[in-house]
Amino acid sequence: MAKKKQETEYRDPLSVGTELLDRIQKTGDIKQLAREDYPQLAEEIRAFLIRHISETGGHLGSNLGCVELTMALHIALDLPRDRIIWDVGHQSYTHKLLTGRREGFATLRKFGGMSGFPKRKESDCDAFDTGHSSTSISAGLGMVRARDLQGEDHTIVSVIGDGSLTGGMAYEAMNNASKLKTNFIIILNDNNMSISENVGAVSHYLNSLRSAGAYLDLKDDVYNSLMRSGNEATIRTIKKLKSTVKRLVVPGMVFENMGIRYLGPVDGHDVDAMLRLIEYAKHVENAVVIHVRTQKGKGYLPAERHPARFHGAEPFEIESGMPRGLREKANYTDVFSTVMCRLGEKNDKVVAITAAMPDGTGLKRFHNLYPERFFDVGIAEEHAVTFAAGLAAGGMKPVVAIYSSFLQRAYDQILHDVCIQKLPVVFAVDRAGLVGADGETHQGIFDLSYLSSIPNMTVMAPKNKWELADMLRFAVEQEFPCAVRYPRGAAYDGLEEHRPSVEYGRCEVLKDEGGILLLAVGSMVKTAVELTEKLEASGRKVSLVNVRFVKPIDPLMFELADKAEMVVTMEENVLSGGFGERFRAEYETSREEGAKVPILHVALPDAYVEHGNPEALKKELAVDADSIFERITEQAK
Amino acid sequence: MAKKKQETEYRDPLSVGTELLDRIQKTGDIKQLAREDYPQLAEEIRAFLIRHISETGGHLGSNLGCVELTMALHIALDLPRDRIIWDVGHQSYTHKLLTGRREGFATLRKFGGMSGFPKRKESDCDAFDTGHSSTSISAGLGMVRARDLQGEDHTIVSVIGDGSLTGGMAYEAMNNASKLKTNFIIILNDNNMSISENVGAVSHYLNSLRSAGAYLDLKDDVYNSLMRSGNEATIRTIKKLKSTVKRLVVPGMVFENMGIRYLGPVDGHDVDAMLRLIEYAKHVENAVVIHVRTQKGKGYLPAERHPARFHGAEPFEIESGMPRGLREKANYTDVFSTVMCRLGEKNDKVVAITAAMPDGTGLKRFHNLYPERFFDVGIAEEHAVTFAAGLAAGGMKPVVAIYSSFLQRAYDQILHDVCIQKLPVVFAVDRAGLVGADGETHQGIFDLSYLSSIPNMTVMAPKNKWELADMLRFAVEQEFPCAVRYPRGAAYDGLEEHRPSVEYGRCEVLKDEGGILLLAVGSMVKTAVELTEKLEASGRKVSLVNVRFVKPIDPLMFELADKAEMVVTMEENVLSGGFGERFRAEYETSREEGAKVPILHVALPDAYVEHGNPEALKKELAVDADSIFERITEQAK
Repeated sequence: MAKKKQETEYRDPLSVGTELLDRIQKTGDIKQLAREDYPQLAEEIRAFLIRHISETGGHLGSNLGCVELTMALHIALDLPRDRIIWDVGHQSYTHKLLTGRREGFATLRKFGGMSGFPKRKESDCDAFDTGHSSTSISAGLGMVRARDLQGEDHTIVSVIGDGSLTGGMAYEAMNNASKLKTNFIIILNDNNMSISENVGAVSHYLNSLRSAGAYLDLKDDVYNSLMRSGNEATIRTIKKLKSTVKRLVVPGMVFENMGIRYLGPVDGHDVDAMLRLIEYAKHVENAVVIHVRTQKGKGYLPAERHPARFHGAEPFEIESGMPRGLREKANYTDVFSTVMCRLGEKNDKVVAITAAMPDGTGLKRFHNLYPERFFDVGIAEEHAVTFAAGLAAGGMKPVVAIYSSFLQRAYDQILHDVCIQKLPVVFAVDRAGLVGADGETHQGIFDLSYLSSIPNMTVMAPKNKWELADMLRFAVEQEFPCAVRYPRGAAYDGLEEHRPSVEYGRCEVLKDEGGILLLAVGSMVKTAVELTEKLEASGRKVSLVNVRFVKPIDPLMFELADKAEMVVTMEENVLSGGFGERFRAEYETSREEGAKVPILHVALPDAYVEHGNPEALKKELAVDADSIFERITEQAK
Repeated sequence: MAKKKQETEYRDPLSVGTELLDRIQKTGDIKQLAREDYPQLAEEIRAFLIRHISETGGHLGSNLGCVELTMALHIALDLPRDRIIWDVGHQSYTHKLLTGRREGFATLRKFGGMSGFPKRKESDCDAFDTGHSSTSISAGLGMVRARDLQGEDHTIVSVIGDGSLTGGMAYEAMNNASKLKTNFIIILNDNNMSISENVGAVSHYLNSLRSAGAYLDLKDDVYNSLMRSGNEATIRTIKKLKSTVKRLVVPGMVFENMGIRYLGPVDGHDVDAMLRLIEYAKHVENAVVIHVRTQKGKGYLPAERHPARFHGAEPFEIESGMPRGLREKANYTDVFSTVMCRLGEKNDKVVAITAAMPDGTGLKRFHNLYPERFFDVGIAEEHAVTFAAGLAAGGMKPVVAIYSSFLQRAYDQILHDVCIQKLPVVFAVDRAGLVGADGETHQGIFDLSYLSSIPNMTVMAPKNKWELADMLRFAVEQEFPCAVRYPRGAAYDGLEEHRPSVEYGRCEVLKDEGGILLLAVGSMVKTAVELTEKLEASGRKVSLVNVRFVKPIDPLMFELADKAEMVVTMEENVLSGGFGERFRAEYETSREEGAKVPILHVALPDAYVEHGNPEALKKELAVDADSIFERITEQAK
């Protein structure tokens, strides 16, 4: 039967075979297995995942946590007729294994390879693409309504983690699911974790459910005593009260109060127990939550012990759990982390806000030093930004650190709550540009557009690690909203000698020799340096500007453009609404006699960019130095 | 003392004086009044509001509902030292009256006059600007943290309606407020209404609180009987259970379960009762909710009877409650309403979704005809969009009708849940462009930018009412996401004779005579027609294109531009990321030899636009025909 509390000893993943896994070639094959084989299959799947992810990197902890849950769903459901919507989706590896995508793990998250998230285009068993948090109940509810309107009767299951429940959208969806008079199964995959540690009332409440057994055990006993001993009036009263109290004392009353049936909690590593509940839940004529308790990292000790480290892991040594390649260079997040600690020391008005990413954003060190000035609001980007606006209105200097693609969630809050009032909130926009392995849903390639369209907003991008520090210091000193966007990965440490102070709205001229004028934003300065060498080697004159301020645009660049034979704008953002288009319009409309110089835009295409190594992606998208060199020489021939 | 249940007879507002109101010249003056004067002051305030709003228009129902609540807050608090954050903010009229802004009501919501929403720049008693829903708890919590970190001790109160509680952001904020160990007062202004009628579990739950009195009354009685009659073991058990049950049976347990203290419900038209609770709440060392029951429209029968009509009212006759000026022309919302009914009849896959705006969006008729295909999700734009994505993934044709400025809330959901998967969701973007009286927070002047930056999105804007119908029909037939944006107010009914069928990505050439080429988006076609007459009268040749598709841009316009002596792009949207910039970049980069024609952009400036009549605003912002004529003749001289 299912293993219990086996917390300290697991077999070496390298010694676990694939005997049962080999029998699963396609969707539904798992149904051929005998019940007594489930534990072994779970072990084989875990070993398979550990072996592969140790090579390719990927989301390990969440996937190890939901092996049995996924097995139970595949046994109980009839895919692809029935539908599973995975919230966030990084926990779908076992689902991919059980739907004939085993070969894909060799190319997991690689360019042209299998995605680390559900993709409708990858399998008809992937019902809905996910990536961001807290969307699965909304999407699932939409599918339920579509099913009912079309007179179909398949089962729809949304699987959502307890961390995702801190996102308001999940609550909006549950509020609407409560009206449902047909079946909709919501699996609450509760590992008491979002990515780091869970926060707030929801987490507290789920904890109380976990320990609710005591009250349940009391119940019958109490009522029986009461009924025996009371007088008639009391008995009537008790009877009246009974149904109320019963409803209230049962775990899950928050869900039940919302009109959503609650089942559980159930051990998420016991396939049989889950099967019983899922089968029962399929017949509920309502939205129904099954509360499944799982352990993140289950079956691999390093991942059980360090859940944050193994959330999204780089390739690692299986025996030790340590990363294979040690990072040689600091990345931008490290720089941000260090600067925030210094800013916190220098200025006691500085407060830091993260939306469930204390590790990912690098704010953990700030948290350790200034716990009272650190706020992890959970996966709640909207609240994070308006909360920051409130802090700023109250006289503090909030720094909100949110990845570029997640900050999309708070577009309205930036526009409506921060910028109308011109409140001095600093946005530290990490993972801006191509992020690599996470792919379409996580690329940070829209922020220059959505931030630049907002009045009163200042948008900066640093060329190297020192400039990131300088820009953050600058931003914290201003009395208006500022965003600093910087990429994932190793921080550029070239151009150390170029460190003029950051002045509002001013670009940095790195080279002024007429010829081809390169206007490079942030990460593209490094590419522009490489490009400059190539162009000069081919006998061309080059001028190079580090744009620094994407908004406002420095008119000094207009003067340089007047002298240039060609202008090249360079940014790691889509063209639409980005720096290039805005530069062109502002420059050309500023020139009464008309601007004569041709302008070439280097930007990302109007398309979603799939997963893959950022360098490979840049080549593919023609935004690397070689490709740009070719485009320039072709245009300027 | 406070009036009760006076539902059928009120004095004629024209016969109510301003005796007490005259004694309130500035913030705090209300504190000089005697308790027995409160009912009369409330009556005078109501009469004042009815008289003024009947002339100027404005939000009536919500303001009549919270007269006593606002009085109680102003009596109990010390403004501006203490802070009130009004959620949405359209209910702040009494607050404005009590803070020395009585004169402002003559110019309410007029250009240059007093805003209908709280504005920090208008008064130091307006603690935070609001306009969109569900932000006040986040902002208030930020101010609380700022207060505590700075060692201050003022009181901070967020006032939120029950409708706003359907927005996920409010839940994110409460989830975070639960951790608070200092005072933060949340007033739940519960009128059982958002704008029309409330939906979902939250509404259901609040209803149950309203009727929870019965259980409360039982409580002591029951426990006493039990304690008297049980044996020792039972008594022990009961004692254990008591604290649990007590907590559970008390109304507000959902709040208490979230770690937020709950007080109430209290009659929101009884100043004394509210004062007692507010004074008590000020000493709670936690976040504390005071549940206040109010009646929307209180004191004015037409508003009590027709809350939706008097939510945001046009000027009306006081006696009858009927609008002063009857609308002569259909507005775009009427057209949308009619077309949706036809589409619903023709195609049973068509479903309609609104976020608490069945009246405002015009979907009420669709609801009446096809109730099972209509979904009002509450003030929950994020859920609305992903729910629509789920419906589309399930085979339906969802039409999501959300105002331009509120759709900002769902930017990420459009980008991440609809467009990555290229799901055929239709966005009916009403109130796009300048909306007038609601001002900064409600202007729909960013949608062309934020929608155009999203891959796989198609963006249309109709020139007149027939084209809106044609575009909606077109959109519903496509297999990819489409947005149709149209303005507030009377639908343009000119150019009826120009009705070529809508073809994907194709503009409509209305006049092709070389000269000055006007490329007009949606509402600007009407302006362009007027402009054309002026230009032709001044002896110039004009060509006129109805852009139709803002995305993708029709290259046919490039050919026309090649022949033009000047190109003028015209849009009711900010320049940044809008049509003009994108046209310029695409056109110019498409011309190998370089584009020679000067391009003039007519668009809104990079700034928030205040309230005022749209025609006056257009003049002020130089996007009316006269201003554009001047700019063209100056540039083309």
